[in-house]
Amino acid sequence: MISPKKYAKATKVLPKGFKSANEFFNYVYSDPDMIWMGQNTNHLHDKDGIMEAMIASIQENDYCKYPPPEGFPRLKELVMDDMGLGSEYDILITAGATESLYLCANDILEPENNTITCDPGYLIIDNFASRFGDHVKSVPIYNETCGYKLTPELVSENLDKNTKLVSLVDPLNPLGSSYTRQERKEFKDIAEDHDIYLLHDITYRDFAHDHQLMAEVCPEHTVTVYSFSKIYGMAGMRIGAIIGVPEIINSIRSIVINDLGTNVVAQNGAMAAIESKPQWIDRVKGTTRQNQDIIKQAVDQVDGAHIAVYPSDGNMMAIDMIDTGVTPREMADYLIERKIFAREGSYTSKHFGHRYLRVSFSIPPTQVEFFAECFLEGMEALKVSK
Amino acid sequence: MISPKKYAKATKVLPKGFKSANEFFNYVYSDPDMIWMGQNTNHLHDKDGIMEAMIASIQENDYCKYPPPEGFPRLKELVMDDMGLGSEYDILITAGATESLYLCANDILEPENNTITCDPGYLIIDNFASRFGDHVKSVPIYNETCGYKLTPELVSENLDKNTKLVSLVDPLNPLGSSYTRQERKEFKDIAEDHDIYLLHDITYRDFAHDHQLMAEVCPEHTVTVYSFSKIYGMAGMRIGAIIGVPEIINSIRSIVINDLGTNVVAQNGAMAAIESKPQWIDRVKGTTRQNQDIIKQAVDQVDGAHIAVYPSDGNMMAIDMIDTGVTPREMADYLIERKIFAREGSYTSKHFGHRYLRVSFSIPPTQVEFFAECFLEGMEALKVSK
Repeated sequence: MISPKKYAKATKVLPKGFKSANEFFNYVYSDPDMIWMGQNTNHLHDKDGIMEAMIASIQENDYCKYPPPEGFPRLKELVMDDMGLGSEYDILITAGATESLYLCANDILEPENNTITCDPGYLIIDNFASRFGDHVKSVPIYNETCGYKLTPELVSENLDKNTKLVSLVDPLNPLGSSYTRQERKEFKDIAEDHDIYLLHDITYRDFAHDHQLMAEVCPEHTVTVYSFSKIYGMAGMRIGAIIGVPEIINSIRSIVINDLGTNVVAQNGAMAAIESKPQWIDRVKGTTRQNQDIIKQAVDQVDGAHIAVYPSDGNMMAIDMIDTGVTPREMADYLIERKIFAREGSYTSKHFGHRYLRVSFSIPPTQVEFFAECFLEGMEALKVSK
Repeated sequence: MISPKKYAKATKVLPKGFKSANEFFNYVYSDPDMIWMGQNTNHLHDKDGIMEAMIASIQENDYCKYPPPEGFPRLKELVMDDMGLGSEYDILITAGATESLYLCANDILEPENNTITCDPGYLIIDNFASRFGDHVKSVPIYNETCGYKLTPELVSENLDKNTKLVSLVDPLNPLGSSYTRQERKEFKDIAEDHDIYLLHDITYRDFAHDHQLMAEVCPEHTVTVYSFSKIYGMAGMRIGAIIGVPEIINSIRSIVINDLGTNVVAQNGAMAAIESKPQWIDRVKGTTRQNQDIIKQAVDQVDGAHIAVYPSDGNMMAIDMIDTGVTPREMADYLIERKIFAREGSYTSKHFGHRYLRVSFSIPPTQVEFFAECFLEGMEALKVSK
């Protein structure tokens, strides 16, 4: 029995030569030549006003003052407008979607409750759900039968009277799978019939071809987690939000951690990011789609390799290489030596991590082309060395 | 019985004309002419390199990338050097001392444990301790007998076999009281004899005339909370740290919330802040001491008013006005109309909040002089209006 507050992190094998995860990430962060395909970050922003807004905020000495604890009213409005939700919903600004997920798990789960997540998936949700509820049912979804996603049927099969939370990362990190309108309707029925909350993590929403908010479909049983780390390219600023009906948000207000608010510079950047989105969203989406093609063409040349979900509705995909004889760990190590940061599957899966490499592609196409080249060379080199 | 995860915030009466705390704080934040004496923030920084370091970080596109999850190694080193602690201690960078306090309460307290805090005090600690442990014993300390602080004697009188945590905010917010070396020695004996952890919040350490780390006196039973919000003037950046022996810090690692790290711009500012401290610390301390005198001279002119602890070892003090016939709430409202933000005592006390106004004074002396003037005028005006 795992103690609710002590829950081991997902298995993360360290790359060769590093003593701690912190040391490895500092190495990756500190090298200006590193190609970032390892954390779904977005490096395609240009002339969007985000940088200028953050610098102006600093120059005005904003950083000496505490912001309003729930977030700047203007930012709250902008997020709601971006989602197309009206005043029947409420919102809190947080220090990143991770904090949002934590607060949702804390608020919704009682000690006897269980949570349904999926594997592959975003494992920190399993971790948080385990701290506050009883157990987590991590449903295996890495197969074509279910479309590489946690379907309404799988949720129905796995729920019981103590299930209180279903995590829907949509599009799904790391696979890029997403839902149909019919599936969303079925989730609504399940949530209402069984009094279950849907934790709708829409971090990758804007990369998707088509997307629909569960908040619109099923407002009373949905809590939505919003991120500025991916589409807005602001991962290092640690800012996000939680949106829901007032009953949910008021409940979360009573368990907030940072009652002194969220970083003011991040909030100013976030406002500029939403305001400028119409100017750059098509370019960013177009480039990420084009980058997917480049990767696909390389993967198609390798016997035994394939992309699990193609095209991905996120800014990342899983390259399955189980039948190549080369492990994702070996490939990640090969790539990092060429200054390409990618992630072996174990970061996002307990059961299928040995099968795939996760690569994100919201980076300049020339960098993706270099990855494709190195991936093909690496496959040859690593096979031969065995 | 209060549910462990739902704990009402301290009573905070809203200033006249505001519908929510968020609206009030947004009003205060947004007015560039506001004089900040309400949140112990520091507005005395100048040419310290913090602003430049943060702007450079943004210009280098740092904000697109995730930082190493535990903090930049260089920042961790700088904090340890600043505290004069060696490699027998470990450290985590957090999104502010508030998050540090939360993690400490979560890590140390089991459901049956109680916590000793003091009133007046920093009430968010009571809130966090109540979420994870059983009850909180908030010991009344607003009297000369105990020197306006939670003494070792008071801790001894209030502990029982389930006491696991003693909160020492040192110097104490809101009073500015601090400890003698003899008292620190007595705390060590209590902690060791009863296997209790000392939560040593040193947010105001650098404003103190003399200070000593409990981590040095009693390393195995101390967890130290470090802040960049006050002496470094970076409240809006939300960055802090937790320091302790490896056993404690490793335990906290397993319950971390933001496994994607702390704002990169804040971290770059924090490094510049520590590195530049020798250049400005004497000036900032000197100005705050001088500002205390200005306030004292004004308070001494008011019959029935006095400063609870003078001089304060923090950058704030409590002006007791119970015998003036004017309430702290009335005075705070009078001041905010003159664009001076100060806090009625209820923000930091459940039992004595009606007695005092809390004012912080790490602001330019001309602003403190304006406060002194308005305070005296306000006393006359508010008495007459009754």
